[in-house]
Amino acid sequence: MGRRKSRFLRKPVEPFVVNAGATTDDVLARMERISFQGRNLGTARRIWEKMLGSDCTIFLGTAGALSAGGMRLIIAHLIEHRYIDVLVSTGANLYHDLHETRGRRHFIGSPTLDDAALAAERIDRVYDTLASEDEFSKNDEWIAAFALKLERRPHTTREFLYKLGEQLWNDTGNNGILTAAYRAKVPIFCPAIADSSIGMGLSQARHRDQTAGFSDVIGDIIESANIVIRKPATATIVLGGGTPKNFINQASVQAEYFDDRVGGHKFAIQIVTDVPHFGGASGSSLEEARSWGKLATDAEQVTVHADATIALPILVSALAGGAVDTLARRKPMSFDLAGPTMSANGRPFPHARFEAR
Amino acid sequence: MGRRKSRFLRKPVEPFVVNAGATTDDVLARMERISFQGRNLGTARRIWEKMLGSDCTIFLGTAGALSAGGMRLIIAHLIEHRYIDVLVSTGANLYHDLHETRGRRHFIGSPTLDDAALAAERIDRVYDTLASEDEFSKNDEWIAAFALKLERRPHTTREFLYKLGEQLWNDTGNNGILTAAYRAKVPIFCPAIADSSIGMGLSQARHRDQTAGFSDVIGDIIESANIVIRKPATATIVLGGGTPKNFINQASVQAEYFDDRVGGHKFAIQIVTDVPHFGGASGSSLEEARSWGKLATDAEQVTVHADATIALPILVSALAGGAVDTLARRKPMSFDLAGPTMSANGRPFPHARFEAR
Amino acid sequence: MGRRKSRFLRKPVEPFVVNAGATTDDVLARMERISFQGRNLGTARRIWEKMLGSDCTIFLGTAGALSAGGMRLIIAHLIEHRYIDVLVSTGANLYHDLHETRGRRHFIGSPTLDDAALAAERIDRVYDTLASEDEFSKNDEWIAAFALKLERRPHTTREFLYKLGEQLWNDTGNNGILTAAYRAKVPIFCPAIADSSIGMGLSQARHRDQTAGFSDVIGDIIESANIVIRKPATATIVLGGGTPKNFINQASVQAEYFDDRVGGHKFAIQIVTDVPHFGGASGSSLEEARSWGKLATDAEQVTVHADATIALPILVSALAGGAVDTLARRKPMSFDLAGPTMSANGRPFPHARFEAR
Amino acid sequence: MGRRKSRFLRKPVEPFVVNAGATTDDVLARMERISFQGRNLGTARRIWEKMLGSDCTIFLGTAGALSAGGMRLIIAHLIEHRYIDVLVSTGANLYHDLHETRGRRHFIGSPTLDDAALAAERIDRVYDTLASEDEFSKNDEWIAAFALKLERRPHTTREFLYKLGEQLWNDTGNNGILTAAYRAKVPIFCPAIADSSIGMGLSQARHRDQTAGFSDVIGDIIESANIVIRKPATATIVLGGGTPKNFINQASVQAEYFDDRVGGHKFAIQIVTDVPHFGGASGSSLEEARSWGKLATDAEQVTVHADATIALPILVSALAGGAVDTLARRKPMSFDLAGPTMSANGRPFPHARFEAR
Repeated sequence: MGRRKSRFLRKPVEPFVVNAGATTDDVLARMERISFQGRNLGTARRIWEKMLGSDCTIFLGTAGALSAGGMRLIIAHLIEHRYIDVLVSTGANLYHDLHETRGRRHFIGSPTLDDAALAAERIDRVYDTLASEDEFSKNDEWIAAFALKLERRPHTTREFLYKLGEQLWNDTGNNGILTAAYRAKVPIFCPAIADSSIGMGLSQARHRDQTAGFSDVIGDIIESANIVIRKPATATIVLGGGTPKNFINQASVQAEYFDDRVGGHKFAIQIVTDVPHFGGASGSSLEEARSWGKLATDAEQVTVHADATIALPILVSALAGGAVDTLARRKPMSFDLAGPTMSANGRPFPHARFEAR
Repeated sequence: MGRRKSRFLRKPVEPFVVNAGATTDDVLARMERISFQGRNLGTARRIWEKMLGSDCTIFLGTAGALSAGGMRLIIAHLIEHRYIDVLVSTGANLYHDLHETRGRRHFIGSPTLDDAALAAERIDRVYDTLASEDEFSKNDEWIAAFALKLERRPHTTREFLYKLGEQLWNDTGNNGILTAAYRAKVPIFCPAIADSSIGMGLSQARHRDQTAGFSDVIGDIIESANIVIRKPATATIVLGGGTPKNFINQASVQAEYFDDRVGGHKFAIQIVTDVPHFGGASGSSLEEARSWGKLATDAEQVTVHADATIALPILVSALAGGAVDTLARRKPMSFDLAGPTMSANGRPFPHARFEAR
Repeated sequence: MGRRKSRFLRKPVEPFVVNAGATTDDVLARMERISFQGRNLGTARRIWEKMLGSDCTIFLGTAGALSAGGMRLIIAHLIEHRYIDVLVSTGANLYHDLHETRGRRHFIGSPTLDDAALAAERIDRVYDTLASEDEFSKNDEWIAAFALKLERRPHTTREFLYKLGEQLWNDTGNNGILTAAYRAKVPIFCPAIADSSIGMGLSQARHRDQTAGFSDVIGDIIESANIVIRKPATATIVLGGGTPKNFINQASVQAEYFDDRVGGHKFAIQIVTDVPHFGGASGSSLEEARSWGKLATDAEQVTVHADATIALPILVSALAGGAVDTLARRKPMSFDLAGPTMSANGRPFPHARFEAR
Repeated sequence: MGRRKSRFLRKPVEPFVVNAGATTDDVLARMERISFQGRNLGTARRIWEKMLGSDCTIFLGTAGALSAGGMRLIIAHLIEHRYIDVLVSTGANLYHDLHETRGRRHFIGSPTLDDAALAAERIDRVYDTLASEDEFSKNDEWIAAFALKLERRPHTTREFLYKLGEQLWNDTGNNGILTAAYRAKVPIFCPAIADSSIGMGLSQARHRDQTAGFSDVIGDIIESANIVIRKPATATIVLGGGTPKNFINQASVQAEYFDDRVGGHKFAIQIVTDVPHFGGASGSSLEEARSWGKLATDAEQVTVHADATIALPILVSALAGGAVDTLARRKPMSFDLAGPTMSANGRPFPHARFEAR
């Protein structure tokens, strides 16, 4: 080629070489040198380890049917070992977690089953996965009964879910998202709790006692923003878009409103199947997030266009193998979540008020 | 071809013939005889008219950036002319509606703009659409100030949004989703209000007065289920999935729990860009909804895989042309939404309690 | 808002206003001021009219099951009225066109039919559309018989398909893609003819006579590039990606190799459902096409992410209404396609050789 | 639950447990018990091993930019170790393979690079991957020069690509798809060769000598069908849809036309990102394939909705670890590909004629 290579052509793609017995960590490390979503998944592994090695608060957002789909013990692992610091979830993922923690199961089905036949047997289908509606009804009643035991005041979902995890842990001793979060004192926010079977359980508590079942979802906004404010750097990992994705971004935007040292998340990973070009928030790009200040202009970020049920087992298996030392050195914030006012590293958040760092 | 035609081969596809000056209604009518999503859009037009001609309560769910994207006056039209009876929306769609009703605008941009440059000028990007962050901040403050004028008690989003529409109408006299719903007394539910700038405005009210800004999203569950119970038949039209889609389905499931004459929505249209095979609720099929009882086993239903910004202008233009008489004969429920207890056709819903028909 | 508006915030989104009895042309004109794919569809209408008003050669690429899906008479209309000058198609679209031109039909089915039952009745399914396999077999035999009548030499698909259209027209007098192209002398290229039932028909001719059924698909490359070279400007309209999309782009790249005044297509519209981020050519962006020189750096272009069975009926209905005068003034190249050497405006293309303008 | 469990609720989902240092084979084995596309990827691993353990001919179809994206040595591995028996590919994948086998590289880029700047430096972009256009032009010339050395008669792509692999191997001694296929005597078909830079090279050979550069793509149809006929069972593995997917299916349909003991592929795996509901062949379901007889009614099959650059490295790493013994026992057909008439296990295919088993 005689002439000098273009500045654009510096780093060649390295064709992936098959290696029998490779660990997931080895595979992902080499995938960073291929292209397209394979490269992005490899990059996600690297950025996540970088988050763990930085002094930042890591938010995880979980949308989609992850718990029904077999991902709940991975999320519990991330909580227990503090790969993350704060969980923002749809109600469904927490509900299906509760279902299994209470000893019930989801079942292997198929997307082509006869739904009229399923309805006749009171079986609910989530694509290729099934569950008993009667067992679901019993969960709802269990949640209603639990809610009737609580003080008669609005609870942030953060406080409510902590207590729910406590009850579940005391009742069952089983591992899961809610129980792991209770034990590790990792806050969980559920901004759309009213759009879930947990919300249905709360409404049934209200039906029995009109002073019960109040969720303070606006309080969640304040607490989540205060968590962002508390540390100079934050990171976001999002599985599947939805309300968790936006809520984590909103926490940063709202935080900046009260403390202009907040400058957007410093790291971002999103594993999504939605696309940007229809304008919805679930599929929106991380580039777009910069215009809003949701992400720092120089944030390290990657979007992986993949189903989380493929990406997550591989990604977390790889980190569990290769990021052990980085994780061991990590010093995450320690939360106290038991009351209406939470605290971080022993310092309480002011009640119902944004507070600059 | 001597032998008899298969029972499967009865109704031929009719190739679409180009017809200069065709109205949208004419085009959609003929699209029902082509294939794929074109056929489905034609079918959606027919099923919607059938809803209008049946004695049923019609829920519309709006997710995605519809208001920012120029769809808000279509939705206002559907409300004003009672093509629908109940709106369930993301907060974003209501917030961007409020932004324009207050006289601000969204702007034509491009998905390839430099987001760092936009951030520097405090401009927020939604794919190819732009808005001023300073104007957004002023909206937030306006919402906070409005919330501080309300009684100090939790408000369902239904009640809160009705009062918000009233205030907007009194202030501006401008048409929009919130003001049309106020004037037509169409209830709006916003189950994920905490995941939106409306929620951010409420949190700022709380910041100023810790007794302000409480949303009773659990009360919304009860009211929405009671609306379902009240009439023998219900219908769902969903644009874009998200919390509105599930909340409308949940209303039917929750209603059935208290009145087993409820048997799922009788008609369903969804216009979505998500797909079923990743397991998320946004993309879930209407077949799957039957297994849950969200849809009646014999419901008339269609899914249109399309961006609502293409499908909606065409679909509603067509209905406005062709379904005039059907619409004129319609006798929708009349709601009273001004207080904490709503009523339908003069009969109040019991306070905070599910009630069988 | 005392301070001056940002340069980015110049052109507001105009919310779409419902207008009973609107024509598709009116609807599309106003959709250019909304957002997302609705805006893009409106833009496609404007760019297509601009193509018609410019002195350029317009290529149309058709992939996907458009003919089976009811789009074939729209494509025939585009050919007959010279909205386009050259068609590049998958074999399937030509084959399903031939099927209907020969008097057979495709039928309305459903994606949830039992495929084993269909197989037992020898019915082939294309998503929600059905056809008789026996009728397909007869088409194959008809194609084989036709091929056996041709001279024993390799035919470009351009020449072969012209003669096929001639035969069909003589046999049936029916309108369709192949017969319209024959009558309007619009060349059709089918670069992947071997991957279609037309190819299967040719292979059956070969089976009967080993000197029959030779396609000169490499000759097609030369002819398509020479068509590009012949005029200063070209345009591409692509429905659905696939081999037609790339072949049209390749024609420009190959043309530039022999005449460096060729500088990429000057206008481009693509209506696709694929996305760019998996790296495939079908979903690749028009921005990317610029890096290759497939598109001029200053080309006017738009991608519409939509199913062609929605976008095409609306777009062409609108153009047929509103672009009549522009079309009437158009002076497209006149082709002679009857022999192995084609000519444009009376000037033959050199045989088997690229030639600069 | 007292009452007997439904027949639908037999096999529970097993939540995935994180296991540090897990191999890809261990991870995939456990993914078969989760849901959604993760389950499907696990199933693909099991079905592929089942193919290897059965007496069947395995077709692999490769579309999309797999070679540019770093997948070419995985495909070479599959060829060399006879995980597959026949490759059907787009021209692009073979061309980008040739590019690297000739010592050139693809480079790591980004989807947000400035395409005008790339065009100015003559760099071609494939989403996030770059290559030098000058190097591409030299490849084209190399291919043209090679084609000019061949006998002046139409070559099937199978014969042409075998000779091309031979030349590449003799010139470079480098591993790659074409050279591995040459050495392992695995036939490659390229039905859309005219829609690729290999076709462009052939057209340049024609430009220099009008008797050169004839591809017999119809002959490929006959050979591929005869390969299907030769063995009682066949299998298809498709990466990314496109012409390879349909060509492999067509081979079975065409084969059945001449030998009705052929009853469709007995195993099928497709890893695709397209979806069925737009009607295109790339996204079409394996259920639909049954209606056509492309697949046996009782075929074992799975569709994985995923980018191949994620799925393939993991899937093949897993098989290389866990399917060693199964692979060692495999006795694949042995092909002779050097001349115009190919043979399998020493028995030639009749020239240009379908032949029953």
